[in-house]
Amino acid sequence: MTSSPRVDGAAGETLAVIGAGLVGTSVALAAVRAGATVRAWDADPDNLATAASNDGIDPGTDPAATVHDASVVFVGTPIAAIANAVIGALADTPPSAVVTDAGSIKTHVVAATMSLASGRGADVQRFVPGHPMGGSERSGPAHASASLVDGIVWAVTPTPVSSATALAHLESFIAAIGARPVRLEPARHDRLVAVVSHLPQVASTALMSLAASEEADEPDILLLAAGGFRDLTRLAASNPRLWSEILLANRDEVARAIDLYVARLERLRDEVRSGAGDAVEGIFDEAKGARLGLAAKPQVRAGVAVIQVPIPDRPGALAALTGGLADAGVNIEDLQIVHSPEGGRGLVHLTVAADAADVAASVLASHNLDPLRLA
Amino acid sequence: MTSSPRVDGAAGETLAVIGAGLVGTSVALAAVRAGATVRAWDADPDNLATAASNDGIDPGTDPAATVHDASVVFVGTPIAAIANAVIGALADTPPSAVVTDAGSIKTHVVAATMSLASGRGADVQRFVPGHPMGGSERSGPAHASASLVDGIVWAVTPTPVSSATALAHLESFIAAIGARPVRLEPARHDRLVAVVSHLPQVASTALMSLAASEEADEPDILLLAAGGFRDLTRLAASNPRLWSEILLANRDEVARAIDLYVARLERLRDEVRSGAGDAVEGIFDEAKGARLGLAAKPQVRAGVAVIQVPIPDRPGALAALTGGLADAGVNIEDLQIVHSPEGGRGLVHLTVAADAADVAASVLASHNLDPLRLA
Repeated sequence: MTSSPRVDGAAGETLAVIGAGLVGTSVALAAVRAGATVRAWDADPDNLATAASNDGIDPGTDPAATVHDASVVFVGTPIAAIANAVIGALADTPPSAVVTDAGSIKTHVVAATMSLASGRGADVQRFVPGHPMGGSERSGPAHASASLVDGIVWAVTPTPVSSATALAHLESFIAAIGARPVRLEPARHDRLVAVVSHLPQVASTALMSLAASEEADEPDILLLAAGGFRDLTRLAASNPRLWSEILLANRDEVARAIDLYVARLERLRDEVRSGAGDAVEGIFDEAKGARLGLAAKPQVRAGVAVIQVPIPDRPGALAALTGGLADAGVNIEDLQIVHSPEGGRGLVHLTVAADAADVAASVLASHNLDPLRLA
Repeated sequence: MTSSPRVDGAAGETLAVIGAGLVGTSVALAAVRAGATVRAWDADPDNLATAASNDGIDPGTDPAATVHDASVVFVGTPIAAIANAVIGALADTPPSAVVTDAGSIKTHVVAATMSLASGRGADVQRFVPGHPMGGSERSGPAHASASLVDGIVWAVTPTPVSSATALAHLESFIAAIGARPVRLEPARHDRLVAVVSHLPQVASTALMSLAASEEADEPDILLLAAGGFRDLTRLAASNPRLWSEILLANRDEVARAIDLYVARLERLRDEVRSGAGDAVEGIFDEAKGARLGLAAKPQVRAGVAVIQVPIPDRPGALAALTGGLADAGVNIEDLQIVHSPEGGRGLVHLTVAADAADVAASVLASHNLDPLRLA
């Protein structure tokens, strides 16, 4: 049920991935899917072997050999290793190649790379930093998937000396493998991700940490933890070393974001403590409006269509639906049953390749099902 | 694909629901499923009509008529209306009936009810307060579902004068409709939910509120909001009036929980700002361990089995699976496709009624699929 290649937009590209962890390997898989030639290298032989066990990802023998004929180099290493890997790639690639990275903070990475480059005479015009805003709380190439790249925002953060050619090349590559390039200055990127990415991580970890320490006195506390608590603490299972590194590398912006957050929490606390119900309701009302606005912006996924189909609650109903699609040669990319509040029937959200959507809809209609295409 | 009745454990009960919102109507549906006679009333005629459009839920003409022959009364009104509804139900029910409520905080509700009762000579031994720890960020009877009750923890918080008979009756009713009664003192309940339920709500709303206000200066900020931000702000879409009421009713415990949370955030901020990577990593490590421990405690759901089945990625694979189950008369309660990181195949999590699990497993094995039973 994984995605099949949908576009050949990257067929002319040769991608070299240096650092084949979760993100590097996911980008490699998305490039394979889009028809690119892909080679990968990782300092950890186990990571490299896991990444290269995927069809279409060839293992490189060393970094220089991995990038020597690349048109795009993606550096997916930990932050501390990026500058060195970028400088190496600039030295070892053809003059037409663009070199990018996946560091979650940009000013720090750009400064480290520029400082190292000035001693080496590196061709930094071909370095265009970036940050694919995807990922998962899991890590490592075994959890990689091309779908982690689908429709995500990929921040492209050129330095003052990045060339227009390299920038355009990177942006077109990103679009070809299914993501959405968004151009930002490095400092602005760091300020924004402090609020929408680093702060949520801190907020989640602090909440889990508090509940765990209360549990020492109140062993039943986590029994009472319902879905809301689980949602808020999911991120707390993320990689501790990786996050410590990210937060420290963006320390000023992270500290600022925590201060702004604490100020909001204290304002809410004061309104609650003083019994100011209208003020509390007003804050909740505004936040609700903003959250509903966010939900209305769909997380775009390239190349697929989602069809909504009500089905009756009896043995065989789902079989009729999937069987009809199978007979017509339609592969189901994803299927989710949404429980109907009224009881007696379910609603299925069916994801198929965009070019199979019309066939799927007519198959469903011919089975007396009433499909509604969502996206 | 909604759940079918699985037990008749409540067949001898007559449930009256006063306040047919999301929770009241969900409890009514779970009681219908378990074989109880169910009547409902709501001050809002639209709510009552929506609730009573479900099979098995009869609309009452007024509160007294609704409860007159009930064995269990469930008061699902907003907090401010609970005391009055409970006192009314105690006056209008047979002497064997137990009366409970769903107020999200307990000391406040108990004090208000006792104070009102003392003037009326109400039979408060039959009042056993409670709090089903389920729910959803949506509200209203149209979003109700018996499945909201499945396997949830239902706090039962007897007052010092609640009778042992009434307590035992309520606990057996809760178990019969599919939830899990957990006994707590009212004050202890309020202290624990301040941390695991009210604080997550405040943390989520404060984060959404901060991001929305930053958006005024930085229109692109929400573009960069990935899945983690969405998880942390989902609760911010909850009902503002309801939450304002809950937080104010538990104001001392909520203010204490916010203070503890702010102290954790400030400690993290100070460690980040001073560059103490090992200390930050240590905090993250501990929180990760606690979160993984939480994930390992499954959210119990009564009467179902979950089977995990790897299936190949080609048209027809899912049809073979669902078709085989249909032929054997097995109804699929839920089905989720989990994408395989390796590509080339998917993993299906299949939920069926517990008593159909063995049949389902042998059907899958006969189709050369390799099922693993999870729960």
